[in-house]
Amino acid sequence: MGDVIRAEAKRRGLEPNAKNTGEVMKLLRKEKGESAVAELCLETIANLKAEKVVVDGIRSLAEVEAFRRKATVLLVAVDASPERRFDLLKERGRRDDPLTYEMFVERDRRELGVGIGRAIALADETVSNQHATPGRLAAEIAQVVERWDKHAAA
Amino acid sequence: MGDVIRAEAKRRGLEPNAKNTGEVMKLLRKEKGESAVAELCLETIANLKAEKVVVDGIRSLAEVEAFRRKATVLLVAVDASPERRFDLLKERGRRDDPLTYEMFVERDRRELGVGIGRAIALADETVSNQHATPGRLAAEIAQVVERWDKHAAA
Repeated sequence: MGDVIRAEAKRRGLEPNAKNTGEVMKLLRKEKGESAVAELCLETIANLKAEKVVVDGIRSLAEVEAFRRKATVLLVAVDASPERRFDLLKERGRRDDPLTYEMFVERDRRELGVGIGRAIALADETVSNQHATPGRLAAEIAQVVERWDKHAAA
Repeated sequence: MGDVIRAEAKRRGLEPNAKNTGEVMKLLRKEKGESAVAELCLETIANLKAEKVVVDGIRSLAEVEAFRRKATVLLVAVDASPERRFDLLKERGRRDDPLTYEMFVERDRRELGVGIGRAIALADETVSNQHATPGRLAAEIAQVVERWDKHAAA
C-alpha cells in the first residue's frame, strides 16, 4: 500500500520522504474517503490477474472492508514493540522512513489516528516479530497461510 | 481489572452482568478519568506487598501509563480473532460475558472506543492465542516473562 502512496506523491510532484508520504496519505483519505489507498491498490491488483495476492500496509478497518468487498481476506497482524519497529526501520533505511525516534512516534500517532489499532485488534491472525529472524517469521507466515488454505478448502 | 469493575458494580447495587459492567466501566472513566480502573487496581496491588504482579484486562494506554508511573511494566498483548475470542468466552461462561455474537461485537466496539486497539498496537510483546492450547499459551507467556527478567537483570 506504501507503493501506491509513493506513486501518488510522485504524481503530485512531491519527494517521497516521510513527511510527504504522511501528508499524501491524509490528503487521499480526505479527498476520496477512508479506504482511498485500498481502492488504488485494488486497481493495481485487478491488472495482475492473480488468484492470490499479499497486501502489506493496512492502516484501518475501512481499508480491510474495501478489500473484503472484492475478495476473501485473511487479516494478519505482524506485531512488534515500538522500539523493535524503530530498529527494523533504521536497518531498512528506506527514503520515506522516519529519521528520528520523535518522527517515528509522530508517525505512530498519525497511523493510530486513522485506526491501525482497531485493525490490529480485530485481525484474524497475529504473528509476533519481536524476536523472530526473517526466516522464522517467513515460516510462521507460511504456516498461517497454509492453515487458512486448508480451512478454505474444507 | 474486571474484578475491580465487578466489585464497583456490586458496591453500586448492580447485578454484575455484561451490560452493567460495561456501564460501570464507562461511568468510572467519566467520574475519575481515563485511568480510573487502573487507579482502583493500584490500590489493591499496594495492599498485596508483592514484588511482581500480573494485571489482566488493560483497555487503554491511559491505564498503561498509570501503571508505568508506579512500576516497571511489560505490556503483553494476547491476541486472537473475534470468532476465536467469542468461542473462548462461551467456553468460560462467566456471568458478565456477552451472551450473543451481537452483544460481543457491541462490547468490542465499546472497548475499541476507549482505546484498546492503541494498547495492543503499542504492546511490548504479542502472543497469539489463535491456535494455542492453554498449556502452550502458558509456556509462551512464561518465556516472554523469563526473557524480560533476564533483560531487566542485564
